[in-house]
Amino acid sequence: MLAAVMSAPGEVHVEDRPDPHIIEPTDAIIRLSATCVCGSDLWPYRGVEKLDEPRPMGHEYVGIVEEVGAEVTTIRPGQFVVGSFFASDNTCEICRSGYQSSCVHRVNMTGAQAPYLRVPLADGTLVATPGIPPDDLVPSFLAASDVLGTGWFAAVAAEAGPGKTVAVIGDGAVGLLGVLAARRLGAERIIAMSRHEPRQELALTYGATDIVTERGDEGVARIKALTNGLGAHSVIEAVGTQQSMMQAIGSTRPGGHIGYVGVAYDVQLPGLPLFFSHVHLHGGPAPVRRFLPELIQLIWDRQIDPSKVFDLRLPLTEAPEAYRAMDERRAIKALLMP
Amino acid sequence: MLAAVMSAPGEVHVEDRPDPHIIEPTDAIIRLSATCVCGSDLWPYRGVEKLDEPRPMGHEYVGIVEEVGAEVTTIRPGQFVVGSFFASDNTCEICRSGYQSSCVHRVNMTGAQAPYLRVPLADGTLVATPGIPPDDLVPSFLAASDVLGTGWFAAVAAEAGPGKTVAVIGDGAVGLLGVLAARRLGAERIIAMSRHEPRQELALTYGATDIVTERGDEGVARIKALTNGLGAHSVIEAVGTQQSMMQAIGSTRPGGHIGYVGVAYDVQLPGLPLFFSHVHLHGGPAPVRRFLPELIQLIWDRQIDPSKVFDLRLPLTEAPEAYRAMDERRAIKALLMP
Repeated sequence: MLAAVMSAPGEVHVEDRPDPHIIEPTDAIIRLSATCVCGSDLWPYRGVEKLDEPRPMGHEYVGIVEEVGAEVTTIRPGQFVVGSFFASDNTCEICRSGYQSSCVHRVNMTGAQAPYLRVPLADGTLVATPGIPPDDLVPSFLAASDVLGTGWFAAVAAEAGPGKTVAVIGDGAVGLLGVLAARRLGAERIIAMSRHEPRQELALTYGATDIVTERGDEGVARIKALTNGLGAHSVIEAVGTQQSMMQAIGSTRPGGHIGYVGVAYDVQLPGLPLFFSHVHLHGGPAPVRRFLPELIQLIWDRQIDPSKVFDLRLPLTEAPEAYRAMDERRAIKALLMP
Repeated sequence: MLAAVMSAPGEVHVEDRPDPHIIEPTDAIIRLSATCVCGSDLWPYRGVEKLDEPRPMGHEYVGIVEEVGAEVTTIRPGQFVVGSFFASDNTCEICRSGYQSSCVHRVNMTGAQAPYLRVPLADGTLVATPGIPPDDLVPSFLAASDVLGTGWFAAVAAEAGPGKTVAVIGDGAVGLLGVLAARRLGAERIIAMSRHEPRQELALTYGATDIVTERGDEGVARIKALTNGLGAHSVIEAVGTQQSMMQAIGSTRPGGHIGYVGVAYDVQLPGLPLFFSHVHLHGGPAPVRRFLPELIQLIWDRQIDPSKVFDLRLPLTEAPEAYRAMDERRAIKALLMP
C-alpha cells in the first residue's frame, strides 16, 4: 500500500509499505475512509520533536473494519468505527477513571496516513457508529478521532459550562473545536484569541462571542478588560508554547480552570507566578476515547459539525502538500483521502 | 509594645514598636492570645526570600477584639476571633468563589508576633468563636489561622475523600495537618512521607496509615509500589521545592489531583513531564477564610486537635530562639505567648 512516511524534518514522502495484518489476537485491521494531518505532526516536521528513524505518519482514522483477531468480541468486520491516537484496553483502573490515553496497556498509534491500519486493543479502542454513515458525515467522525475529542477534553478540563466566561488560546483546529465544545457545554461567553480572519469567522460560527487579536501580555490585558479585571473562569490552551501557557495562566481568574492540550515542548512553568495565580491546571494527551460515544451520537444526529475545520482535502498521494499547507498556515487542517 | 522584627537573614529581635491603632474605619485592633512562627517565616530567615527592610514578623493570630472602626458591623469588642494571613473583604466575586486569599482588596498580614495587631477589613477577615474558649483550645484556634487551614485547603485541592489513597509530601505542621484533613475528609489510605520519628508518630496519630521514608525518585517508586503501580489518587505537596514538586507529579496517578501549598520558590515545572502526567494541579496561598467557620466548629466541639503540632511554647520575648528551633528542625512549630 502507499502510505505517508516522514524521513526527516520537512521530508514527507508517500511510499510503498507492507499491508498491515493481525499480530495480536486483540487487533483489528481497518480500511480507512479518511485520515488527516495533525497539528502535532508539525512538531517533527519542524524539527522540534526528534525523529530517530523514518516514521509512518498519522494517528487520526475512521473506516470500515476488515478483519479482527480471535479475541476481539465487540468489534465486527463491516462496522464503521472511530478510534483515537492511543489504543487502550478501556478496562484498567486508569481507563475506567476516564484517562484512556494513560491506559496501563496503551499503544501509541501511528501509520494512519495510509489505506489500511492495524489497531491494537480493538475492543477497547474502537467505537462503532450506529450504522454506516453517509459520506458527508465521514469528515466529522474523523474530527472526533482527535481534534474534536481534544478540544472537548480541553473544555471539560477547563470546566467550561453555564455562567462561565471561556477564553480560547489557539486558533488551530483544536482551539476552534474547543470553542464548539465550550458552546455545547453551555458557556455563557466565549472569547476566541485569533488574528486570522477566516479562523475568526469559523470561531464565531462555532459559538465565540468575542474575538481578541492581541497576544502575550497584551492578550492577557484584553481578557482582563473583558472580565471586570478578574480574568476568565475557564481557559482552553491549545498551542503548547511558553508564551501561550503563560498567557493562559495570566488570563485565568483566581480559582479558575485551565485545560491545556497543546503538547508542551520547551515549556518551563515558573513556580511563584503559578502558585499565586490560584488556577487549576489540567490537561495532557486527551482521553478521546472517553468522549467518543457522546461525540459520535452528536455527529450522527447532526447536532454538531466539526468538519468545517477541514479546509483542504487532498488525495493521500498528495500528503507532502498537505503538510506544507498546514506548516505555512495556508490550511487549518488537511483531510487525506486514501 | 515588644514585637518580633526580622532585620536580616537569621536576625530576629524583640524590640519596642508603636502600639497599632485604627487607621481605616473597617479595621479592628485585637489583643493576641497567642501567635506563632510559620514555616514560611523561614524563607526570609534563610535568605531565600529577600527582605527590603526590617519586617515586623508574624501572620498567625487569635485573640480578643479590643476596638473596631466605625464601619465594622459584625465583629464586636470582647469577641474571641480567628483571622488569617490575608485580610479579605469576603464580598467580592473572588471571595464569594472561595478564594479569599486572592480577594481583590486583599491585604498581606504581618506583625502578628506582637501583643496587639491591626486587622484590616475586619468584618470580612475575622471569624468569632461561639464564645470565649477555654485556654486549652487557644492553640488549636491559632493553628486554624494558618497551618490547619492550609493543610485543609491542600487536602481539598487534592480531592482527598472516600475511597482515595492520599500521599502527603512534607512532614512540617502543614503536611501533618494535611494528614488530619485527609482523614476528616474520609480518605481510605494516607501515606505520610517522613524520615523523622516524632513526626511519623504525629502523622500516625492524625490518621496516616503508611509511612514512607524515601524521597525523590525512590519516594515515587515506593508510592507506586503501594498503589498497584498507578500512583496515589491525591497528593498533598507541603514543601515547595523543585524536588518535592517533581515528587508530587511523579507520585500521582493519571487523572489524580495534586494540592500544593508549599511556597514554590525556585521551582520550574517542565512542560512535557507535566503534560504526560495527566495530573490536576491546584494550590497556592490557602484561602483559609473559606474554611474557618467549619474548622472553628470542629475545634470548639473537640472533634479535632490540631494543637499537637506546637511542640515548643515560649514567651514572645524568646522569639529568636523559636526561629532557631524551627530552622534547625528541633521544633515542628513554635507557639509564642505575648
